[in-house]
Amino acid sequence: MVRAKCWILKKHFEGFPKQSDFELKEVELPPLKDGEVLLEAAFLSVDPYMRPYSRVYMKEGDTMLGYQVAKVLESKDPTYRVGEFVISQSGWTTHAVSKGKDLSLLPSSWPGNLSRSLALGTIGMPGLTAYFGLSEICRMKPGETILINAAAGAVGNVVGQIAKLKGGKVVGCAGSDEKVAHLKELGFDEVFNYKTVGSLEEALKKASPEGYDCYFDNVGGEFSDIVLEQMKKFGRIAVCGAISQYNNAAPKKGPYVQMPMIFKELCMEGFLVTRWDSRKEEGLKALLKWVEEGKIKYHEHITKGFENMPAAFMGMLKGENTGKAVVKV
Amino acid sequence: MVRAKCWILKKHFEGFPKQSDFELKEVELPPLKDGEVLLEAAFLSVDPYMRPYSRVYMKEGDTMLGYQVAKVLESKDPTYRVGEFVISQSGWTTHAVSKGKDLSLLPSSWPGNLSRSLALGTIGMPGLTAYFGLSEICRMKPGETILINAAAGAVGNVVGQIAKLKGGKVVGCAGSDEKVAHLKELGFDEVFNYKTVGSLEEALKKASPEGYDCYFDNVGGEFSDIVLEQMKKFGRIAVCGAISQYNNAAPKKGPYVQMPMIFKELCMEGFLVTRWDSRKEEGLKALLKWVEEGKIKYHEHITKGFENMPAAFMGMLKGENTGKAVVKV
Repeated sequence: MVRAKCWILKKHFEGFPKQSDFELKEVELPPLKDGEVLLEAAFLSVDPYMRPYSRVYMKEGDTMLGYQVAKVLESKDPTYRVGEFVISQSGWTTHAVSKGKDLSLLPSSWPGNLSRSLALGTIGMPGLTAYFGLSEICRMKPGETILINAAAGAVGNVVGQIAKLKGGKVVGCAGSDEKVAHLKELGFDEVFNYKTVGSLEEALKKASPEGYDCYFDNVGGEFSDIVLEQMKKFGRIAVCGAISQYNNAAPKKGPYVQMPMIFKELCMEGFLVTRWDSRKEEGLKALLKWVEEGKIKYHEHITKGFENMPAAFMGMLKGENTGKAVVKV
Repeated sequence: MVRAKCWILKKHFEGFPKQSDFELKEVELPPLKDGEVLLEAAFLSVDPYMRPYSRVYMKEGDTMLGYQVAKVLESKDPTYRVGEFVISQSGWTTHAVSKGKDLSLLPSSWPGNLSRSLALGTIGMPGLTAYFGLSEICRMKPGETILINAAAGAVGNVVGQIAKLKGGKVVGCAGSDEKVAHLKELGFDEVFNYKTVGSLEEALKKASPEGYDCYFDNVGGEFSDIVLEQMKKFGRIAVCGAISQYNNAAPKKGPYVQMPMIFKELCMEGFLVTRWDSRKEEGLKALLKWVEEGKIKYHEHITKGFENMPAAFMGMLKGENTGKAVVKV
């Protein structure tokens, strides 16, 4: 008999999430049926998307959704053997019974020297988001200039590093001097702290006086209003996230985008990484190779203790993390 | 010695254009030099883009810019013979001396029964805008549903008719019952008068309860805010015009677009027809063929008299025209 601890959405978030919106529960898991697998979480992911998804896909009382790296404790599905590690969508829970359909095995070639937590970050969903968003939505060509905001986040840092590998000029913004220093180490060409520059407009102009071909947007809102004015003709805007908007109680407004979009013939596309599910292997293989070769560096912001998941989540929403925010059980 | 009448931008428009912003002048044209052509306007175009372009490309005292169909009165360029008709970018002028570079001949196959004014509309720039915007930006597939606003305008009516030819379900909005009736005659599947429906949202839902795959946007602003919510997953938005915004004294605001763009993975692209200049022949050939076969119908709103150009322009901005607004000298 296994007892799982899990974090429940006690109350739908209003504005910025609060500790009291979450509740820690214990539940007893039923015995395994044929085709089922018993999992024990090793690492759990906290990601920005969980904030808007909670509103769309969850009701009060549901376990918080999300990915985890888990160990197979018991298995009645021959695909998954005891002791193997999988990526599971079990949500914020220490243990889970899974039907095996929403699982994927960590590559058997996973190098012994790499933490399995990377399967939630640079060699996982955020890495794939960067990989496909850059190639398929930004369609960045060598020699082009790309702007990335939240550049020290789980997705942004990978976008910038791949863009460098592909011959781009990479401009990144982040919200602390420590993050800015980190991005310079990663090889970004131009980096600034958007919280301390006097004028975002001037900082963007200084970083790339001729404007931007590509904009990988994780932030949205006023930041994007200002970037729009500095896009080059035929620029591409990949709308990956809108973290500036997730915690608004009511939708905010900004200048209409149509006129600059027409006169500069811009293309703005929103996307979710799930659209490339059929090409996941290609992406993971490339990311794993780059990481092994040291061409893509990674940094994780690890919070210890399952009981600290809400704090890790809220901290990530505040931008406390450099690199991927992960909880280690 | 030829004297030309021309309409000058006397004062930059502030808000909606006024008659006093224009001035009629007479100028004496110089004798032709080698490589030059003397033109006499037959039809002049008034188009929405002139409003925003005036701010970007003109200074006070300049002749209003625009296309015209003109007759060659005299020629020192062997490409253009006396009596032939050309499309010229001479602007709002009765006569002009042209270097020949900004001219294009009307197709020699132009059918005798078609008014040459169509070379400013359905078989001209607006028709090409519809043709390429639909195929290259909306990328509409057979069976998909497309929404077109300002659907009775020069571009919108052609978009809808081509979309029908390509197997789409076509929903059009216009601003008068007369226009709505016209669009029904053209074969649009669903049409409504956006000024008299109680709720635009409800009218859009009624016209296509399952939402919209494509949105050919000539209007922008609040109209687009409401449409955005009714786009289907992976919908494409072709931003062709923003007539609701051209006459604003200051930029207006609307809800940020990023969140719906991400969650529905929408693609929004602004465009100018000039990007397909190299494919102009292809487009004009297709449009001319459809018109000759009766598969695309046309309607023109003709204002007589060069002296009425400002009135024709302002009327078009108010939506007085059904089909292409043209001035006949």
